[in-house]
Amino acid sequence: MKTVFVKDLLNHADEEVELRGWVHTKRDHKKVVFVDLRDSTGIVQIVGGTDLSELSPEDVISITGTVKKRPDHMINKNIPTGSIEIEAKKVDILSKSEPLPFEINKEDLNLTLPTLLDFRSLTLRNPKISSIFKIQEAVIEVFRKGLKEKDFTEFQAPVIIPQTAEGGAEVFEVQYFNYTAYLAQSPQFYKQILVGVFEKVFTVNKTLRAEPSMTTRHLAEATTLDAEFGFIDSWDEIMDMAEYIILFIFESLNKTVSEELMHFRKDLINIPKKIPRIKLREAQEIIFNRTGRDNRSEPDLEPDDEREICKWAMEEKNSELIFITHYPVEKRPFYTFEDPEDPGYTLSFDLLGYGIEWLTGGQRINKLDTLLENAKKRNIDIKKSELYLQAFRYGMPPEGGFSFGSERIVMSILGLLNIREATLFPRDMERIDVHLPTLYKKTE
Amino acid sequence: MKTVFVKDLLNHADEEVELRGWVHTKRDHKKVVFVDLRDSTGIVQIVGGTDLSELSPEDVISITGTVKKRPDHMINKNIPTGSIEIEAKKVDILSKSEPLPFEINKEDLNLTLPTLLDFRSLTLRNPKISSIFKIQEAVIEVFRKGLKEKDFTEFQAPVIIPQTAEGGAEVFEVQYFNYTAYLAQSPQFYKQILVGVFEKVFTVNKTLRAEPSMTTRHLAEATTLDAEFGFIDSWDEIMDMAEYIILFIFESLNKTVSEELMHFRKDLINIPKKIPRIKLREAQEIIFNRTGRDNRSEPDLEPDDEREICKWAMEEKNSELIFITHYPVEKRPFYTFEDPEDPGYTLSFDLLGYGIEWLTGGQRINKLDTLLENAKKRNIDIKKSELYLQAFRYGMPPEGGFSFGSERIVMSILGLLNIREATLFPRDMERIDVHLPTLYKKTE
Repeated sequence: MKTVFVKDLLNHADEEVELRGWVHTKRDHKKVVFVDLRDSTGIVQIVGGTDLSELSPEDVISITGTVKKRPDHMINKNIPTGSIEIEAKKVDILSKSEPLPFEINKEDLNLTLPTLLDFRSLTLRNPKISSIFKIQEAVIEVFRKGLKEKDFTEFQAPVIIPQTAEGGAEVFEVQYFNYTAYLAQSPQFYKQILVGVFEKVFTVNKTLRAEPSMTTRHLAEATTLDAEFGFIDSWDEIMDMAEYIILFIFESLNKTVSEELMHFRKDLINIPKKIPRIKLREAQEIIFNRTGRDNRSEPDLEPDDEREICKWAMEEKNSELIFITHYPVEKRPFYTFEDPEDPGYTLSFDLLGYGIEWLTGGQRINKLDTLLENAKKRNIDIKKSELYLQAFRYGMPPEGGFSFGSERIVMSILGLLNIREATLFPRDMERIDVHLPTLYKKTE
Repeated sequence: MKTVFVKDLLNHADEEVELRGWVHTKRDHKKVVFVDLRDSTGIVQIVGGTDLSELSPEDVISITGTVKKRPDHMINKNIPTGSIEIEAKKVDILSKSEPLPFEINKEDLNLTLPTLLDFRSLTLRNPKISSIFKIQEAVIEVFRKGLKEKDFTEFQAPVIIPQTAEGGAEVFEVQYFNYTAYLAQSPQFYKQILVGVFEKVFTVNKTLRAEPSMTTRHLAEATTLDAEFGFIDSWDEIMDMAEYIILFIFESLNKTVSEELMHFRKDLINIPKKIPRIKLREAQEIIFNRTGRDNRSEPDLEPDDEREICKWAMEEKNSELIFITHYPVEKRPFYTFEDPEDPGYTLSFDLLGYGIEWLTGGQRINKLDTLLENAKKRNIDIKKSELYLQAFRYGMPPEGGFSFGSERIVMSILGLLNIREATLFPRDMERIDVHLPTLYKKTE
């Protein structure tokens, strides 16, 4: 087992160590050869003789050598190990790499998206790219931690579901033994059922959507973070919880992955004290006043509107995030609670951040009769959703919750242009690891 | 928002509190009515007058009352709140329950499995049943914690995959836009790819298997815990890591969910000091000698054999767990590493516990040529697995890992007779929440 990692080297000055990792770069000056060795914790310079000449980028190597302090004028301030280097004594190649199709050791690879993804197993090794997924890991971990601190229970929601009651369109079908089943677009029904058991629940889940478009912000498969809880006195408490968890994530990212963030940002994440909350109609009025664009009769915000209202929030409320509330009844799922004080509009919200939708949530109907009535109005076939109805048949407290995609929030925080960059192995209409049209063209 | 939970009541003696939860039981003595209120943290007795008479089991209520110490002879030692009760002042019904089809407030419901699952949203509210999923939650949480402490990175593996290279049979097909895709039976390829990026990785993932049988230990959809890591010196290190994580899980369960465990066991989990490791052939010899059952030419252990060798391990090695190693090459997937010192047999292992298979793992081939050769030998169409091959083309260290199902281990530790009991919403040939043959008979 490997015992010394690059990040620990500063504690081993003048000692002999064995390092294992990949050849990141090689600079061959004939008698002296410099190799940067990369492992999962960082990069360090190796100095050696001609026995290093045979090494090529991405070879997996074991190097035994002495940790030496560099002379002052040779210190590289750009990397944490810049004050040391390793004087190689012995090098072994554990696994030889084929020649690379392109260099992966630059800060920015500047590849087209198809190349980035066609060579995903290679491009993920670039330190800037791998750091995206350390940040995604941190978002998910902190989401769990924040809700655990509020006594939420984590559960595992199913992927295969019996019905499409929630959405209808854009759902993947599965041949399930002798039946037709579907892939879950959200754990919505299950998290509501479990409010009846654990009161407060969350889940980190794959959600699948047959998105028939190639936008920069949608995926066929996403990792979604969902929370739901009961015994609310007012629906504001749902926004309070969403606000708590988003700000908790921000604070934690600034602490735990600040180095990774700096690949993408000049500064840490700006944390608003309070996220403003306005009704959709107010937002539309503000947008109309600022731009002359009249979308006041629309049931939702367009991408341009989302950007504009975030600009307004930053200018007027010093927050890059804003809650938009009270979407019209017809725009929200059948289980959404209608505002008794504002008929036709729901106790629902979207959280927008940095110009796009981050999170969606709201209060749910907890009376069986109203649920059944709404399902009927919308022609939703609810008979396969017996377990969902059961939860309400046998006593369900007032409740609500929210949901957001881990890729969308990472994309947004890092300023990535395409959500596929924030996804390890993105799936879309044309790609499952490989580019499907190319593969099938080749093989037909 | 609810502020007082049942578990906190002992700190509120003689105070007035508001509790919210479900009516667990009611005993109506005309002038005096006793109600047990259940919330996610426990059960407490409420004493009140005729205004409690209208309550029925599973009504969701809010009760305001005073926390009173019970007289000594009235103390109920069976529940943590047995030394107190609540004198009700005011009760509100937040959501009325329909009459229940059966009582859910007994320790053991004694329902048939179909009834248990047909009424899953209700039966999950039984405290013994809900505790199964607090234990599953703990297993998953501790798995993550244990590997984080060893510097593993958590990642999100895809559900939709382009090929069936690993298994072949028993895979679900998905209509994926204009293509045919499949549901992942394991995150195997992705975790190996990511050893090339992060060195040590793990994932908690849904795995889907079109299991055409109705055994007590298989599910169509499971939550699987997978780990994989590189730079091993010897394949024993993979078993060492599996042993570490299993014993770490045991220790943590004994601490964090001891109360939940006691619904199912008389004692805490017995933790072996060291888990014995023997070759499959040795195990078969031992079984033959103990029982006369001659399975010495079989490539695997039968269920009876698994039970027998666990009995032997307990009797001879004081461990209810045992590693069985060196399964024959043809019995293991094409990427399994053959033992150079024992040709025909692989550096692979199963961990058996309490008489059944818990975990499987091994060293993997990290040379592209050998991988391609093996795939060809087995007629595996590898062209859609380009990303997998890529990882080995560009330098991959010696590596290995293991995988286990969270439901299987919980079932086993708790002594449940059917794995469906250890699954919130089990899926099998005949059930996705609802019993499919019944539903489709009804609707045709």
